[in-house]
Order: sequence, then C-alpha cells, then structure tokens
Amino acid sequence: MKNLLCLTLLLFSHFALAQSPESSTMIRIAELEISPEHLDEYLSILKKEAEASVRLEPGVICIYPMYEQEKPTQIRLLEIYSSREAYESHLKTPHFLEYKNSTLHMVQSLRLIDMSAIDPASMSAIFRKINP
Amino acid sequence: MKNLLCLTLLLFSHFALAQSPESSTMIRIAELEISPEHLDEYLSILKKEAEASVRLEPGVICIYPMYEQEKPTQIRLLEIYSSREAYESHLKTPHFLEYKNSTLHMVQSLRLIDMSAIDPASMSAIFRKINP
Repeated sequence: MKNLLCLTLLLFSHFALAQSPESSTMIRIAELEISPEHLDEYLSILKKEAEASVRLEPGVICIYPMYEQEKPTQIRLLEIYSSREAYESHLKTPHFLEYKNSTLHMVQSLRLIDMSAIDPASMSAIFRKINP
Repeated sequence: MKNLLCLTLLLFSHFALAQSPESSTMIRIAELEISPEHLDEYLSILKKEAEASVRLEPGVICIYPMYEQEKPTQIRLLEIYSSREAYESHLKTPHFLEYKNSTLHMVQSLRLIDMSAIDPASMSAIFRKINP
C-alpha cells in the first residue's frame, strides 16, 4: 500500500486539473459537531450515507469521514466530487435526504469549507518513478 | 478514476486496522495559518517537503496539502503515517528539518489534530462490488 493513497490523490488531482473549469473537481472539508447523546447513532447513519454515496453516484469520488481522537464529537469529512453538478445531484439523492433529515437534530454545528489542492505538478517525479 | 481514491483510502484503513496496535496508523489533520506576505514562498517550500516525504519515506503514506478557497492563508494537510515510529522518524529527516527551519517565521498558528477514520467495515460491499 506504500504511497498508493497519495498517488491516487495526486493522480486524481492531475486528471481533475486537466478538465475544463466548468467540470472542475470540488474538494471540501466538512466540520461538524455532534451532540454527545446522539454520537453513536450519528456515526452509524453517516457510515451508511457515505457508503451509499460512493457506491451509487459516479460523481462522488470520495467521502472520507474521520473524528478527532480527543473530541470524538468533532467530525471531519474529506469530500471530493467530480464537479459542482455532481455535488448538486448528490444533494437530491434518497440516501443523502434520508441522512440529512434523520440527523438534523443531532448536528450542533456545521461548517462547509471549499478547498483547493495545492498544485500537484511538483509530484510528477513520483509518477515517473512508479511508471518510468 | 471512479471511486479509486475512496477505495484506496478504505483499503488502506482496512489493512491498517488489521495491524497490531503497536504499529497502528496515524491519521492527522494539520491546520496552519500563514502570514500573507510569505504565502507564495511557503506553498513552494511545503510542496517540496510533501513531495520528498512521500518519495523518500516508506512510512509516509500521504501528505495531502490543501488551502481554503476563501482564505488561502488557511492551510490544511491530511497526513497519514504507517505508525507513530514512522512519524517520529519523519521529524528527523533533512527535508522536514529544512522545511521546519525555513518556514518557522511564516507560520502564524499551527494545530495538529489526531484523527481516527470511522470504521470502514460497512464499506465491504464496495470491495465485493469491485472484486466480486
């Protein structure tokens, strides 16, 4: 598995950068705080939603959920969509609507942060090393 | 590239979970604020350091740097090391020490957050779908 994760991220960024602006990749970090009494239930629902999104939606490249070890009610998701259209489509899926409606009262705060990957051009040496 | 990123993350989590606690994976989000006048120079140095770390260190699974689109001085890194030992070793490498020393005056704040991936067991359906 050495470097496979990062290579995949970089390869993905590489291909994404080659696309037109209209279909550009959307990278986001979602920051959520969950009420402690609902945490277990929330994690269970989130896992199902992330799994269904990646499995059913071609435009959902990744929804990777994590929690802070020292504050497990602090959830972070790395979300990558192939385009803004793919994200808008995601918001209308039954599994997302089910997740949203069933967890609304569990979420104490939500911050959605649009991110950009730092230019991966300098990583071309890695591609050449793996695929000389 | 459909789902390859997430599958890699999940496969990695899967293998990592099978390891002993002594060699358990370290997942971290680093949050940095960079002084605006040094941003370009900082990004250039960070790119070099991330590239060298992934290329030269077997235990550096990923250093994936991003910046906030609305506040480009806000940097986020998803860092994954194969173990705490791999991380401790990373801190002693020439490329990390060079990065650290040359950017110390550019970093206005730094927060290192230890994360856990939410249990990927529910994702086994994806593995079966791709590898039936």
